[in-house]
Amino acid sequence: MSNSNQIPPEVLEWMHRMFEEHIPFNKELGIKIERMEQDGVALRFQMKDKYVGNPIKQILHGGITSSLLDVAGGVAAAVYAFLRLDEHTLEALMQPIGRLGTIDLRVDFLRPGFGTEFIAFGTVMRAGRTVAVTRMELHNEEGLLIAVGTGAYVVG
Amino acid sequence: MSNSNQIPPEVLEWMHRMFEEHIPFNKELGIKIERMEQDGVALRFQMKDKYVGNPIKQILHGGITSSLLDVAGGVAAAVYAFLRLDEHTLEALMQPIGRLGTIDLRVDFLRPGFGTEFIAFGTVMRAGRTVAVTRMELHNEEGLLIAVGTGAYVVG
Amino acid sequence: MSNSNQIPPEVLEWMHRMFEEHIPFNKELGIKIERMEQDGVALRFQMKDKYVGNPIKQILHGGITSSLLDVAGGVAAAVYAFLRLDEHTLEALMQPIGRLGTIDLRVDFLRPGFGTEFIAFGTVMRAGRTVAVTRMELHNEEGLLIAVGTGAYVVG
Amino acid sequence: MSNSNQIPPEVLEWMHRMFEEHIPFNKELGIKIERMEQDGVALRFQMKDKYVGNPIKQILHGGITSSLLDVAGGVAAAVYAFLRLDEHTLEALMQPIGRLGTIDLRVDFLRPGFGTEFIAFGTVMRAGRTVAVTRMELHNEEGLLIAVGTGAYVVG
Repeated sequence: MSNSNQIPPEVLEWMHRMFEEHIPFNKELGIKIERMEQDGVALRFQMKDKYVGNPIKQILHGGITSSLLDVAGGVAAAVYAFLRLDEHTLEALMQPIGRLGTIDLRVDFLRPGFGTEFIAFGTVMRAGRTVAVTRMELHNEEGLLIAVGTGAYVVG
Repeated sequence: MSNSNQIPPEVLEWMHRMFEEHIPFNKELGIKIERMEQDGVALRFQMKDKYVGNPIKQILHGGITSSLLDVAGGVAAAVYAFLRLDEHTLEALMQPIGRLGTIDLRVDFLRPGFGTEFIAFGTVMRAGRTVAVTRMELHNEEGLLIAVGTGAYVVG
Repeated sequence: MSNSNQIPPEVLEWMHRMFEEHIPFNKELGIKIERMEQDGVALRFQMKDKYVGNPIKQILHGGITSSLLDVAGGVAAAVYAFLRLDEHTLEALMQPIGRLGTIDLRVDFLRPGFGTEFIAFGTVMRAGRTVAVTRMELHNEEGLLIAVGTGAYVVG
Repeated sequence: MSNSNQIPPEVLEWMHRMFEEHIPFNKELGIKIERMEQDGVALRFQMKDKYVGNPIKQILHGGITSSLLDVAGGVAAAVYAFLRLDEHTLEALMQPIGRLGTIDLRVDFLRPGFGTEFIAFGTVMRAGRTVAVTRMELHNEEGLLIAVGTGAYVVG
């Protein structure tokens, strides 16, 4: 029995490998995708000393915040690009994945990035024919909202 | 003879140390500031394998693009924060530097980030009492414009 | 008994008059503020033929969408600027109101602006010393989300 | 002899009529397009009392600033959408024009909008298959830069 809103296990596995292992800077950051579903994605990141942006306050560098939000938006856009395909196969995903790219990103830095672990969430807000617009949030391990973002992604 | 638009050598040296050595992720990226003047700043970055965002195309990760633009905007805002002080001393710089922070950042990804070396430029467009708005550009070693950005920074 | 999270009636009345009557383009648009509270503001707008942006589809002009979101963000920032004052009097409000200004605005156009009446919501996401960042939404009379926005405002 | 970078007179005339006459809010604002060329567009707007956003300072309302920048970006995107067509005819323009829409807009308010006449410029920065990203500027009649903006537009 097919469910058009579900991602088959082999596609999930492929997406994990691509975003966590095959994209070098994602791998360097140690990003782990926790959730990839139609209504949103979540990824996790462990803080390290080299990612500090302010040596006095020991907070996350704004470039890492931006990176995590961009990746969360990109994963959400990839899930959207897959689920709207007529055929839910790995082969059919190759064309939209090949075209996937960030058009623009806005990041709002709400609070100093204190924390040892960060979770980034992404959801699709505009589900267009050629462009998806996503909203993202970055929380620390205590659930505090550190930053929000919006991204536009080519998806077709 | 004093020139109010110039940064004294000891302040320049301190800013280099702070942005290149004391901010861990800037140091990790190997950012070198090439120019810090009233009408703009420039910084240089060498590409490495771990900063790739697309393993097929071997282009710069969008998070690194965002990081470089944010740092360029921040250095431009720091120069502005210094030059508008009544006293052009290192001591006087400590208060605005302590408050310096990114409010928001927009990045427009114009072309795939091919290149071995990238240069980011930043200039102040809005020189406010408490907020500076900066515009940034990222070029590769052939002068191709890869991305542009806009940032708002607390400066007072 | 005082409640620091409430706006006194004379301040509410003054804010209504200022935003609805004294700002000429708000008056021209016929904006009515429905709600001004600490956790958010809401304003209402009636569609007119002259505010159409696409003559075939008869949808709201993107400039009106942007105007309504900017006003909703500005009213939310004004409420924040008032509630954090030590003294909750109309006199004390004059300094922050005189300084209130939009630094930047981002609008994401999610769906065609069909509708006869639109409601814009605004809430403060970053409550800073000198800058407030707000998030806004525009819905039509059926509750459909037409656009979202983010704004940064000088508040001190 | 054809020149692929030129817009035929009948297309220019049609674009003027569409943007100046057929879009109701553009007509209401009295926007006049001064220039539509491959390297950029310019449009002109006369200030009126009803477009004031601050009754004390008598400056342009931020919503009008946003409207003018969005229209300038949209006209620049329309010119790009036309010039990349295989056939430079009015008929061929109908499909991209029907799809033309703003995805997102960022406006940076640099200076108070004093002035009696304003000119908005728009140029295409990212010339994509399905998305154009444009940069815009708003100047007053003395050439002072009031605001800048960036927009992303669906063009295919």
